[in-house]
Amino acid sequence: MPMQKALKFTRSLLAVTITALAGVAIAEEPVKPIRPVQEINLAQVELGKKLYFDPRLSKSGFISCNSCHNLSMGGTDNLPTSIGDKWQQGPINAPTVLNSSLNVAQFWDGRAKDLKEQAGGPIANPGEMGFTHELAVGVLESIPEYVTEFKQVFGTDKISIDEVTTAIAEFEKTLVTPNSRFDKWLLGDKDAITADELAGYNLFKNSGCVACHNGEALGGTSFQKMGVVEPYKANSPAEGLSAVTGKDADRFMFKVPTLRNVEMTYPYFHDGAANTLTEAVDIMGRLQLGKKFSDQENAQVVAFLKTLTGDQPQFLMPILPPSSDKTPRPTPFN
Amino acid sequence: MPMQKALKFTRSLLAVTITALAGVAIAEEPVKPIRPVQEINLAQVELGKKLYFDPRLSKSGFISCNSCHNLSMGGTDNLPTSIGDKWQQGPINAPTVLNSSLNVAQFWDGRAKDLKEQAGGPIANPGEMGFTHELAVGVLESIPEYVTEFKQVFGTDKISIDEVTTAIAEFEKTLVTPNSRFDKWLLGDKDAITADELAGYNLFKNSGCVACHNGEALGGTSFQKMGVVEPYKANSPAEGLSAVTGKDADRFMFKVPTLRNVEMTYPYFHDGAANTLTEAVDIMGRLQLGKKFSDQENAQVVAFLKTLTGDQPQFLMPILPPSSDKTPRPTPFN
Repeated sequence: MPMQKALKFTRSLLAVTITALAGVAIAEEPVKPIRPVQEINLAQVELGKKLYFDPRLSKSGFISCNSCHNLSMGGTDNLPTSIGDKWQQGPINAPTVLNSSLNVAQFWDGRAKDLKEQAGGPIANPGEMGFTHELAVGVLESIPEYVTEFKQVFGTDKISIDEVTTAIAEFEKTLVTPNSRFDKWLLGDKDAITADELAGYNLFKNSGCVACHNGEALGGTSFQKMGVVEPYKANSPAEGLSAVTGKDADRFMFKVPTLRNVEMTYPYFHDGAANTLTEAVDIMGRLQLGKKFSDQENAQVVAFLKTLTGDQPQFLMPILPPSSDKTPRPTPFN
Repeated sequence: MPMQKALKFTRSLLAVTITALAGVAIAEEPVKPIRPVQEINLAQVELGKKLYFDPRLSKSGFISCNSCHNLSMGGTDNLPTSIGDKWQQGPINAPTVLNSSLNVAQFWDGRAKDLKEQAGGPIANPGEMGFTHELAVGVLESIPEYVTEFKQVFGTDKISIDEVTTAIAEFEKTLVTPNSRFDKWLLGDKDAITADELAGYNLFKNSGCVACHNGEALGGTSFQKMGVVEPYKANSPAEGLSAVTGKDADRFMFKVPTLRNVEMTYPYFHDGAANTLTEAVDIMGRLQLGKKFSDQENAQVVAFLKTLTGDQPQFLMPILPPSSDKTPRPTPFN
């Protein structure tokens, strides 16, 4: 049996065993527990972590990946739309980086096929980090410790944006959040959630939320129209998938966001217009499902959603290698 | 013997013992090794760490203490002057927070007597975090986990700015950087620095640099005129101590910056005008000492300065408690 097939087989076997041990039929639930990280390149992760926190990948030297996907705050900036180079207002809400490896594609409109492709976007976006890939690579190549680490990790003498985004993506793959109370319940710990939270989950399933918010991430695996039953009056001109496909039918089709850690990822929707879960659940019910949740139902669904907060990534704050005399200096004010 | 006196006596005894053990007369060197943190309130430190990283202490929800005193980058932002609310350009270079507990006073002009007094400054400075103490406290009071933690740490039901800055200051006291190669040399490890680095230290002592850059932090303990032998043509209108004392004689008197971790705290001087250590050493020699270092001398002093990089603070990236439905939302764009 080839290695990869053997690994897959072992994993399936493990899943079956865990399910059996847990004594619950996970397979029957539309929501699945998050699996911990596996098959990761640790050297790339450590390099990627530094790059993720390094504001020298921006023109200003002030904005890093972590500025808008802040790992202290659920992998978001908790702002309706982000702040970019020279305090430009972004056009759309920064989605969480947590569990983003589970997404079918990246960005709200899915224009990047994976984390690696996504990672290059903000660096070169004039409204975000405002830099270019060439200049960012030039900065890294002027820093001896980075040159050594890239050589160690990738075996190359020359740094490329391809390696930069590979390392960032590898770090981001570690940002999964297993062990939420709901996952404990899924894995068989009946006391992990309260009766109210369970009632909320049943409402979530029976009202149709689960049609889009399912799987490990409760979202991230499909594109859906924002405003099915009633149109959504957005605070944003973003039109979603149609910007990628050019098809009129894809207007206002957005990637369904994950609900993992949703208590931490406010404000909600692609325009960040809903400040609270109560508001978001109410709007989703009415606009997507044609259902007006009662106050009690809404509170129960919100209580369920709060059980989806998992273990947040825990790691030592990275120390960045200092610039050298040759490093081009950031230009925040011109 | 009262407790405090006994502690002091024990500490002195310990210092004598360490000196004796190390086999060098530390007392004779004008530079002293950094002592590790002692007598700290750990509960305050943990709370203070969260507050230090929390951008909700700013009007925009985007700027935290760590934005400009970035602990991944030597406790600075590595910019000539900082970026404040709405991308305002700051008037002066952000000094490192590392070892700042060793400073005689805080800010370049010493206008805050200690870390606690300093910590309140940027929060309420319209050009920095752009908030008010009242609004910042209001945000914290709306976050249940903070309310509980303040109660646990300070025993009070009501959060005040006094407690906020006390906790931040306590965290900052932990940000010392012992164990640099130079400290190892001071403590008796003769192989910890090279012959060139030692030659640099001797130049540093014999040329007069050490008159101001001495003690544990190699600076931070006095105010000196920037431009003694020749006037300094600054990129900044800042006038230093005279802004605090009102005395004309104090014009261009600035707190002598620490040289600890100076390899990481570029660019240099209160206006951040010197990009490299080579440039900074050259300017300091000419303007402060009337001495033109040769290229070789300059390189040796720079080599010595690079031995002053100590252990950087290592800690888990803090996870911030989420806002509640009642938390006032940040207003970055109005």
